[in-house]
Amino acid sequence: MERHFEHDLEELKQRLLWMGSLAERAVHQAVHAVLDADEALAEAVLSEEDAINEMQIEIDDRVQRLLALQAPMAADLRFLLAVARINGDLERIGDQAVNISHSAMRILRHPQVKPYVDLPRMTELAEGMVRDSLNALVRGDQTLARSVMQRDDQVDRLRDQLFRELLTYMMENSSVVFSAFELVLVAKNIERIGDHATNIAEDVIYFVAGRDVRHPALDRR
Amino acid sequence: MERHFEHDLEELKQRLLWMGSLAERAVHQAVHAVLDADEALAEAVLSEEDAINEMQIEIDDRVQRLLALQAPMAADLRFLLAVARINGDLERIGDQAVNISHSAMRILRHPQVKPYVDLPRMTELAEGMVRDSLNALVRGDQTLARSVMQRDDQVDRLRDQLFRELLTYMMENSSVVFSAFELVLVAKNIERIGDHATNIAEDVIYFVAGRDVRHPALDRR
Repeated sequence: MERHFEHDLEELKQRLLWMGSLAERAVHQAVHAVLDADEALAEAVLSEEDAINEMQIEIDDRVQRLLALQAPMAADLRFLLAVARINGDLERIGDQAVNISHSAMRILRHPQVKPYVDLPRMTELAEGMVRDSLNALVRGDQTLARSVMQRDDQVDRLRDQLFRELLTYMMENSSVVFSAFELVLVAKNIERIGDHATNIAEDVIYFVAGRDVRHPALDRR
Repeated sequence: MERHFEHDLEELKQRLLWMGSLAERAVHQAVHAVLDADEALAEAVLSEEDAINEMQIEIDDRVQRLLALQAPMAADLRFLLAVARINGDLERIGDQAVNISHSAMRILRHPQVKPYVDLPRMTELAEGMVRDSLNALVRGDQTLARSVMQRDDQVDRLRDQLFRELLTYMMENSSVVFSAFELVLVAKNIERIGDHATNIAEDVIYFVAGRDVRHPALDRR
């Protein structure tokens, strides 16, 4: 029985990682649909959306079943609760990729704002955060999880810089307002992907160390 | 023992509703900081942020303790899982209110875009969705939960309309680009508040009916 449970937990983790790889790929494709003006990539993301949503439901079902049948304690319970939360974050990362793909399609129909300022760097950072948050989960690596959390500020700084540049473009040349505006939305989506990766990293620490590291500014009484 | 558990569940629900009322108030104050150009309201939201974050941690702790001690089944298990998810959504609604407050403060330092187009209507809709998603939770009311889910499309339509108007402003008059841009961010935040209310409504249905209604487009095999 105990052994069977271990097997179920391992299988659950594998499914979650599979979902993570779907979400990662969706983000990569969506952003490159924008950067490379590649509509086929945007369409690929849209056609994969259902697969991610189905995975979310499957994983939540597994968590609920294991909670009901096994009544796990301590680390196993924390793991299951962490998986439930991470699952939600991955699904939302997939949603962001879908939003970015829609933006890509709209951008393609308008004059391009060139060059795409800091978007590639911002994207690379956010993609790296998602990847490393999942690596931290696989390895139970708190140090890696903390490094993901630290990178969130860099993403926010790049977003601010990007916003400033885009605003300047818009003020100087009203013909790029539409495209620049879409890039603002894309940057917001990438920022949120970084936020979700941060959430995942926090959940990894919660699961590994049993400590809640959300809201570090709080004075824990 | 059983009776004690019922009491614990009721107390948990009351705490969640209290957290909901904090989040609701934060949204209301933040948006009115923008609409009424009232900096004190924005500051009030920022000073309440910690209280919401503390509530989130407290509620997650309660959920974890009840899962560990009571090993609940069926409806009670679903209730606890729903509370954990709703808790996350309420905290993020609080985050959106904080973002809106920061926008309000920046907007106050620039020439105003008047009138604030459809922002008041969009806000009212989103606030109503949050309120009714919590009412649906209290009453276990699936019909009300579904009406919240349906209203999400209206919020998205108002957002699109608002974006079009703001883009037009920006193209016509470069001096309002900054303020219009901040209003775009505010509208994005309000849209996300509507999304979180929709998530809460979906969780209410999951808890009451035991049915997963996220992703209605999926063909459930």
